[in-house]
Amino acid sequence: MTFEKVSVVGLGLIGGSLAAALRESGEVGEVFGVERNEESLRFALESGIADAGSCEIGPGISGSEIIVLATYVDTMAQVAREVSGFVSPDTIVCDTGSVKAPIVREMEKSSLSIRFVGAHPVAGKETSGVKESDSGLFSGKRCVVTPVENTCSEALSAVKMLFSLLGSEVVEIGPEAHDEIFSLVSHLPHAVAYSLVNVVASSGEGENIFDFSGGGLADFTRIAGSSPQMWAGIFIENRDAMLSAIRSFSGKLEEIEKAIDSGNVEYLETLLSKARDSKRNLGKK
Amino acid sequence: MTFEKVSVVGLGLIGGSLAAALRESGEVGEVFGVERNEESLRFALESGIADAGSCEIGPGISGSEIIVLATYVDTMAQVAREVSGFVSPDTIVCDTGSVKAPIVREMEKSSLSIRFVGAHPVAGKETSGVKESDSGLFSGKRCVVTPVENTCSEALSAVKMLFSLLGSEVVEIGPEAHDEIFSLVSHLPHAVAYSLVNVVASSGEGENIFDFSGGGLADFTRIAGSSPQMWAGIFIENRDAMLSAIRSFSGKLEEIEKAIDSGNVEYLETLLSKARDSKRNLGKK
Repeated sequence: MTFEKVSVVGLGLIGGSLAAALRESGEVGEVFGVERNEESLRFALESGIADAGSCEIGPGISGSEIIVLATYVDTMAQVAREVSGFVSPDTIVCDTGSVKAPIVREMEKSSLSIRFVGAHPVAGKETSGVKESDSGLFSGKRCVVTPVENTCSEALSAVKMLFSLLGSEVVEIGPEAHDEIFSLVSHLPHAVAYSLVNVVASSGEGENIFDFSGGGLADFTRIAGSSPQMWAGIFIENRDAMLSAIRSFSGKLEEIEKAIDSGNVEYLETLLSKARDSKRNLGKK
Repeated sequence: MTFEKVSVVGLGLIGGSLAAALRESGEVGEVFGVERNEESLRFALESGIADAGSCEIGPGISGSEIIVLATYVDTMAQVAREVSGFVSPDTIVCDTGSVKAPIVREMEKSSLSIRFVGAHPVAGKETSGVKESDSGLFSGKRCVVTPVENTCSEALSAVKMLFSLLGSEVVEIGPEAHDEIFSLVSHLPHAVAYSLVNVVASSGEGENIFDFSGGGLADFTRIAGSSPQMWAGIFIENRDAMLSAIRSFSGKLEEIEKAIDSGNVEYLETLLSKARDSKRNLGKK
């Protein structure tokens, strides 16, 4: 037994999958779930995703060695403050959000301080909700942890251990570097996918235009089905990196636009070859 | 036997797959391939992709009921002119390119005229070349044919029959409407994917940034691996529709950018919900 008790706050796709995976690991004595939606909580308890649970953050979470926060990024800090009222001074708290600097820097100044560890399991689906829970969601995926100067080493080790139990490969990156990297490889692609679907839908070609999405669009529509509420929160929490990523992207697209406009096929080929070659390097890994 | 002889000019991924599928159908007496790359031609003949072939457009293609052009879109018109020197007045010619109006309108004025049928099998992979040929490539996929006022009905029927033999669902659309639709559902997504990979690669985060592409980028990198030469040709052939598609897309992305910049989370959610809902409608089909 690695942990006597772990609490998971927020039983959506991530929280539910995490709770289910912890139970399946056999390394956690009790998995306690907090979920304000009663129907979701009932589902989690009836289907064995959590051992016990409650609808509100309260005394039920006390006695946990680790509390995992799995709510939307724009509510995470508030949830952390509520949690801190019910835990002993040695309880470790981690989150699971896609944006790290705002929460990590705010927690540095909070009562949790050295016992808070920012974490981002790089896993997900375009679906959401506890009924989509999948105990294998984190297996073979990366989990980024973002310790800062005053993070206590015991807390860091415990959080790394927890994500290792889920089958994840844990890597350490600073919170600001994390947000810059993920603005490019995750948040920007989502903004682009949403924009692409919006421009096709509003083209005046009618709904049947989607019948032809096999020509390329289909690759983008999967992630455009992701939760708007969750992604709006992520974009705004990671505001500065997002704005910079969108501007850089617009610059690259404008290069292609200008090459098309001027009919410069050689230059256009050079621009596309650069991307193809980068993609090939990626394929080698 | 539906056709005594069909010639395929250009044995790349599309031409090679098409020749292989025609042979497999058992409905074509002889499949003759033209491929100027000697090694590719040899491969096609040795692996049974074509029954016979030559390195140049010449007398070998005569006697064909249909000649299928499968070269890059920016060379298609020139190839059609060369072909017309070796065929009888009743030979039907079709192409397979991703852009239709330029070739169709040019052929209207050529000696092929009523016997030319524009066609676009909506199938492909990010790989290219005859060695990637796959006789199942067109099965269950759409093939758009773009007849115009003076296209003779016999030619149209024969080309529709040919693509039906490959297992494709054939639909008729005007060439200009085709180019507008595909600028949105195929050409724009490719331009966007290339730009996205270029911005990530040039971010200064180093090559390791691609290790995190599971967070969304991976969905886009597949099509950014497509042939730069082929896609540069497509973008430029479909110039006006492409420029208009890129501008509309940039407008949609700018809406998201402004909502992030002003911190307007409700409006941002509305923009993303629109895309999610369109994607759901797509999923119903």
